[in-house]
Amino acid sequence: MSSSDSHAATRPLLLEELEPLATGAWILGAGGGGDPYHAYLNMRELYADGVSVSLVDPLSLADDAAVAVVSSMGAPLVGEERLKDPVMAALAVQQMEQHLGRRFDAVMSVEIGGSNAFQPLMVAAVMGLPVVDADTMGRAYPEAQHSSFAIGDLQPYPLTLADVRENAVVVSRVASWKWMERISRKVCTEVGSVAATCKAPRTGAEVKQWAILHTVTQAIRLGDTVHDARRRKADAVAAVVQHTGGVLLFSGKVVDVARRTTEGFLRGTAKVDGLDEHRGQEFRVDFQNEFTVGWVDEEVRVSVPDIICILDATTGEAIGTEALRYGQRVKVVALPAPAIQTTPKGLEHVGPRAFGYDFDFRSLFGDGA
Amino acid sequence: MSSSDSHAATRPLLLEELEPLATGAWILGAGGGGDPYHAYLNMRELYADGVSVSLVDPLSLADDAAVAVVSSMGAPLVGEERLKDPVMAALAVQQMEQHLGRRFDAVMSVEIGGSNAFQPLMVAAVMGLPVVDADTMGRAYPEAQHSSFAIGDLQPYPLTLADVRENAVVVSRVASWKWMERISRKVCTEVGSVAATCKAPRTGAEVKQWAILHTVTQAIRLGDTVHDARRRKADAVAAVVQHTGGVLLFSGKVVDVARRTTEGFLRGTAKVDGLDEHRGQEFRVDFQNEFTVGWVDEEVRVSVPDIICILDATTGEAIGTEALRYGQRVKVVALPAPAIQTTPKGLEHVGPRAFGYDFDFRSLFGDGA
Repeated sequence: MSSSDSHAATRPLLLEELEPLATGAWILGAGGGGDPYHAYLNMRELYADGVSVSLVDPLSLADDAAVAVVSSMGAPLVGEERLKDPVMAALAVQQMEQHLGRRFDAVMSVEIGGSNAFQPLMVAAVMGLPVVDADTMGRAYPEAQHSSFAIGDLQPYPLTLADVRENAVVVSRVASWKWMERISRKVCTEVGSVAATCKAPRTGAEVKQWAILHTVTQAIRLGDTVHDARRRKADAVAAVVQHTGGVLLFSGKVVDVARRTTEGFLRGTAKVDGLDEHRGQEFRVDFQNEFTVGWVDEEVRVSVPDIICILDATTGEAIGTEALRYGQRVKVVALPAPAIQTTPKGLEHVGPRAFGYDFDFRSLFGDGA
Repeated sequence: MSSSDSHAATRPLLLEELEPLATGAWILGAGGGGDPYHAYLNMRELYADGVSVSLVDPLSLADDAAVAVVSSMGAPLVGEERLKDPVMAALAVQQMEQHLGRRFDAVMSVEIGGSNAFQPLMVAAVMGLPVVDADTMGRAYPEAQHSSFAIGDLQPYPLTLADVRENAVVVSRVASWKWMERISRKVCTEVGSVAATCKAPRTGAEVKQWAILHTVTQAIRLGDTVHDARRRKADAVAAVVQHTGGVLLFSGKVVDVARRTTEGFLRGTAKVDGLDEHRGQEFRVDFQNEFTVGWVDEEVRVSVPDIICILDATTGEAIGTEALRYGQRVKVVALPAPAIQTTPKGLEHVGPRAFGYDFDFRSLFGDGA
């Protein structure tokens, strides 16, 4: 054990927390990040084989602890067609250790939303590292420059990328976060639009200052809330809204979905016809992997960085942008964005203009979370 | 000086050899590799500033000498619009030294054809390394798997790539030479279709066994032949044919050129209407950066790996695929391919089928050079 771990507060992540983690992370995915279901099954299998993963409180990390930041990169549609591979996930981290000439003390996810909530767990299962209870997005976002480490102007390089074949790439230096995104995205697309990556390594001090803290626990609690409502035959979507301090934006039926996978992203638009109190209205939402902007009757109602979720009206289960289809009964909710994303610097990275829209962010939640 | 150099036969490369090197390398470019003119001017400038580069006989390299293999990668059209940059060329090599944790003893070009003949000279000028009198193609070719090191099934990785912005990528492992080509080409295209690369490092033993030897000297002598013929007001193209044991295939006027820059390559077709003894005939040639196949009146007359050159009918100067245009008076010549490229294994890598044509190679030169 490294000295960095000596005073870190760790606890075992329990088998029974894995399913709520999947449910909660999928809601926080905001339509993207890929359905965590296969990753969850995989982890359950590993737990059955005797693996156990521990969760470490980021606030207890030593300032000089070395933290690996991992993700599975690519188009969600493709990611779900390939089973999650713990060895490939770890390979990217081992490549980074080799490049740096040092070992990591802990591992964390670049995004808690979607299947990447499980990426550090898979690395942990192979490498025996604790998982940091934090991420860099508090949700899912499509691109590298959307992370809180990018908002903090931390160094964007090096990055390692591994694919299923045994190709491995180190992006050892880049001119900017956008260049990191451009270069690593091209490589990812070329190797089949899915790859395991290890992002720029971080110190414990950087994690404490810039990461979005305790989001693994937050996702588990969100999932618990949904499962609990289902058990009680209560309104699961209402429970999500209440638990998160969110807003119910719309109820209706999916009537149109246009999507295309381009340049490693799933882009498109979906339309929902209003039911109940929204009868006669239409909700339209754009997505780039994740939902970005929602309109009610052509008026902007919600936008990034607020977390737009489309949930099954009955079960409260999240519906991904790749799984939306005609006839689904859905409720659209918005959850408050992490505070750092609603600062002026945060909005430069993840506000509507960062996604190509010509209007300013107006929070549904006052001055941010 | 490293022990590897202690018994290496080196000689200074003279200022007056640079211009013939440019002329000869441009002919060996087979239409590709980019016009060496700017690189030549750049080196002449460096020599004027007191730089001097030495040339080392590959046969005198120690078996364990560490040799950097360099190239400027990309579409010739783009490469010529950017001045050659010795610092960027050296950066790729320095990145490789950092990745390997060791220093190089010498540097060589991946291809003698075109401006890459000067790439190791630029690295040498910055880093003080001797240049190996050898390359891996004996000409220019568009892709990584066309090198003699690929024909020899040597390890294709790691590769480093640097661009003008300060982006740097290490392709640390690949499943095959074709994967190296695919991944590095994507990165190259993304950073603007031109980048400095340092290919997989080689030992002196590998260079002696698999490189194409003494091609720097060969290019200089070829250039000398052209310059000498011009001085004597003799037929420069005839002098090239005689000096190389080549064949004059066609004389005529360029009447049609179709070209497009796609995926980092310059692809297209050119047509030449016959003059003199070829009046009434038509020569057509395909290219992917370099000339690949030539037809006379729709019958295949010449193909890779034989070196197809289109030369100015008067001066014997090579004409690149990016510079061909209507009205040019040209002579088409074929020079014999390096022996390794006409072996069965060689033809798998650089024969017509490797470039997508459905016919076998038939040498104009019997069983190869």
